[in-house]
Amino acid sequence: MKLYSFFRSGTSHRLRIALNLKGLKAEYVAIDLRKEEHSSAAFKAINPQGFVPALVTDAHEVLVQSPAIIEWLEETYPTPALLPAQAMDRAHVRALAAVVGCDVHPVNNRRILETLRHQFKADETAVNGWCATWITAGFDAMEAMLHASSKRGTCCFGNSPTLADVYLIPQVESARRFKVDMARWPLISAIDAHCMTLSAFQDAAPLAQPDAS
Amino acid sequence: MKLYSFFRSGTSHRLRIALNLKGLKAEYVAIDLRKEEHSSAAFKAINPQGFVPALVTDAHEVLVQSPAIIEWLEETYPTPALLPAQAMDRAHVRALAAVVGCDVHPVNNRRILETLRHQFKADETAVNGWCATWITAGFDAMEAMLHASSKRGTCCFGNSPTLADVYLIPQVESARRFKVDMARWPLISAIDAHCMTLSAFQDAAPLAQPDAS
Repeated sequence: MKLYSFFRSGTSHRLRIALNLKGLKAEYVAIDLRKEEHSSAAFKAINPQGFVPALVTDAHEVLVQSPAIIEWLEETYPTPALLPAQAMDRAHVRALAAVVGCDVHPVNNRRILETLRHQFKADETAVNGWCATWITAGFDAMEAMLHASSKRGTCCFGNSPTLADVYLIPQVESARRFKVDMARWPLISAIDAHCMTLSAFQDAAPLAQPDAS
Repeated sequence: MKLYSFFRSGTSHRLRIALNLKGLKAEYVAIDLRKEEHSSAAFKAINPQGFVPALVTDAHEVLVQSPAIIEWLEETYPTPALLPAQAMDRAHVRALAAVVGCDVHPVNNRRILETLRHQFKADETAVNGWCATWITAGFDAMEAMLHASSKRGTCCFGNSPTLADVYLIPQVESARRFKVDMARWPLISAIDAHCMTLSAFQDAAPLAQPDAS
């Protein structure tokens, strides 16, 4: 498999974690968003949307959109499972993941912040404030959901990583980059600290990637 | 089951379609976002995040986050299936859904537009321009993905509705509300026209809800 990735992309980061947890190797192809390589004809031939990540199988099938790719990984490589067995537990884990995937990450990603800067004349203080607003709202929600869950362990659900951790840890990394004080969320912080003791998460970190700079 | 919904909420709309396609009945509980009912203590006791939709089962289990709820519906009520049988086809359908669910809807929803208005002093022209930007980017991507797919039918995938249609049709409704000209996307427009001949989609439409006004 080939993984088209940018070291600092949160959606690439979550897919790297999922691949590592499944023990899958993929050739790393760096797409430098700062050089607009995602908008090149070469990359758009792979993903017309021009977004990382994209995963290309050995049969040359192209997978796009990290939530779809991660569900495909789960279905195609079921062990170790990243979703619990019971439907209601799966819904809980997917809901935690969706807080990051639908409520936080999409409003803080690069194209949105660029539009705020250029079209709405936002300075860096305003941009950081925008990011902190949505990170805080999302993490407040996740912290409450984790607090209310009897299934919480060293990870979001139990003691083994699930989709919820796969989505959460890159968002914590992003929150730190935007100077958000994580002390407000002790449960999330403890889960982050635990996950970062695991090689699947360590090896997926932005600064561990070949294109880190 | 009880469905906590707001007639004009895109995420509530997609869940209503999924429930209808599955032939499931749910008691409709209107949460009026314009009256800040989603921020009330009563609703936050159900969903601490204060977002619609929420689905409460007859066993009083609370489901939140529409992508998680819809996957739960698919697992719990598998017939009729809203995902294809093959993993790669499922990934394609989920990727189409994720374009709406992760790239378009989250950046155009109410709390984001309110922040643009109040914090960035955006007028209605700027707000409509913001929405049109992300709808256009997302629909351009979906149109290209649909065009490239040999599996496209009267619906996004084949001739029966899948998750892709469940997500797409509410976004088309929203695009029209923001005065986006749908003529740019003939494949999406044809799928929308077909789906709107089906009672599951008709009955889920914002103006067909008891709280429509």
